[in-house]
Amino acid sequence: MITVLSGGTGTPKLLQGLKEIVNPKDLTIIVNTLENDYFSGVYVSADVDTVLYTMSDMINDEFWYGVKGDTFITHERLCELGCQELLRIGDIDRATKIQKTQLMKKYGLAKAVEIQAENMGIESKIIPMSNEESDIKLITDIGELEFHDFLIKHQSRPEVLDIKFSSVAPADGVVDAIKNSEAVIIGPSNPITSISPILSLEGVREALKDTYVVAVSPIIGSDSVSGPASKFMKALDIEVSSVGVASLYEDFIDNFIIDDKDVDKKQQLNQIVNKVTVTNTIMNNLGAKKNLAQIIMDSIL
Amino acid sequence: MITVLSGGTGTPKLLQGLKEIVNPKDLTIIVNTLENDYFSGVYVSADVDTVLYTMSDMINDEFWYGVKGDTFITHERLCELGCQELLRIGDIDRATKIQKTQLMKKYGLAKAVEIQAENMGIESKIIPMSNEESDIKLITDIGELEFHDFLIKHQSRPEVLDIKFSSVAPADGVVDAIKNSEAVIIGPSNPITSISPILSLEGVREALKDTYVVAVSPIIGSDSVSGPASKFMKALDIEVSSVGVASLYEDFIDNFIIDDKDVDKKQQLNQIVNKVTVTNTIMNNLGAKKNLAQIIMDSIL
Repeated sequence: MITVLSGGTGTPKLLQGLKEIVNPKDLTIIVNTLENDYFSGVYVSADVDTVLYTMSDMINDEFWYGVKGDTFITHERLCELGCQELLRIGDIDRATKIQKTQLMKKYGLAKAVEIQAENMGIESKIIPMSNEESDIKLITDIGELEFHDFLIKHQSRPEVLDIKFSSVAPADGVVDAIKNSEAVIIGPSNPITSISPILSLEGVREALKDTYVVAVSPIIGSDSVSGPASKFMKALDIEVSSVGVASLYEDFIDNFIIDDKDVDKKQQLNQIVNKVTVTNTIMNNLGAKKNLAQIIMDSIL
Repeated sequence: MITVLSGGTGTPKLLQGLKEIVNPKDLTIIVNTLENDYFSGVYVSADVDTVLYTMSDMINDEFWYGVKGDTFITHERLCELGCQELLRIGDIDRATKIQKTQLMKKYGLAKAVEIQAENMGIESKIIPMSNEESDIKLITDIGELEFHDFLIKHQSRPEVLDIKFSSVAPADGVVDAIKNSEAVIIGPSNPITSISPILSLEGVREALKDTYVVAVSPIIGSDSVSGPASKFMKALDIEVSSVGVASLYEDFIDNFIIDDKDVDKKQQLNQIVNKVTVTNTIMNNLGAKKNLAQIIMDSIL
């Protein structure tokens, strides 16, 4: 069994490659739930849904959000009615969210996601990191902002001064999945708002220390490949570089994968991490995704 | 001002005619809310939505439910996901229901409907009969059933032995609308599950006694024009005929309109009602709807 820790963009790209070269039944994916919230009366678990859609080949991989080719009839009508919906929820995507909201009430989030994964024909195990509601607040130069307000309404523009998030309990199976895996892959997701929330769950860091862990840096040079990771790292006084990322993982990491463009950082990284692998980490086509996945798997086996 | 008491099928047909010959600003429509309930996490106020769609020319007047030409992308996906939605909610219609559910939480149902009517460009006043949750249970030969289970799941087939519904308080403006109207029109809606719930609101019957009331019989011969009205009347031991309907309204009615086919009942009805008007009440085209509306308005003025 291989366990992957995932956020909503970089790691799903890697999952597209991984699921081509690893038997999906041998994959467990633990997914960040930090920014989950209710919109228009439905529970939006954005990273979980992105992983569900990625593993069922439904993902809109232009935006890494929602379903490819989805329509927006209800969303557009809500706008016409004057009741703007902050997130653009597609019509197929809304069915996922309606069902999840109803299943959650009965069974909790983790079981709801398990049922949905099965409905979607997914053979991998997808575990949301927690069944508990969490909360993230960004302290910015224009005041305290909810995560989605920062990301969508303010287009990630404000300066971020600090990030606060609530502590939640891990969902059943999270710690055991790590303990029972031959290796854990930390995908190139935002280390602050996607990976750190998983790492901060009780028992996770300890379990990672006893497992072979390979991580892919989401930072190349001094900027994130996608999303606001660099802004969040700066806010927490972490160097915006692969070295900064490695410092967050140094107590448990066994192999750190950085991009060819960062080859000059290899020596410095070797002070922190046992093994540093330099390769192409830009996954702009399926070939590149499979190559990176293969390099990771080769280092594990 | 003219006030109309409405359910979800017969009276909306009449409204299509009325709004062509009366200034919509002079119409107030009080709508039954007895069967309102939550489906897929949204509040479904079926009769209210039918009136909203009728007055904004959006109604699917094949089914008298939902929006003409609507798509069912989310609904069909919910079925694929194995989470059947008892009501077939269209994508445009779902936006109405999502917005209403959110507005209700803030402002209550009556204000939510007022905002939505304005959003839809409706100039008439639409008042749901109550802001309170109500409950209707049908005692049938196969056991106690929720209203929508009876209507949809069991296709109105079981024998109805009794009907129980909870008592609720009228929404603000219901009793005043009746008091301040030149006349009240009771449309050809189900007298048991659409009109009786409005009549049972505190102050309504008393207000009707002081107002000119004209009602249209939804029963021709010994059967209802649409829906399960005859079944419900039988269950309550009310004669399934225009005479039976008149007996429910006899303490306040001034003019009772029956269909040409019921002309033989005129004499018997004259024992109960001051004035009986015999005309075509089958509204199968706009001309017939306008004719019936005109006959009603002529009797008022």
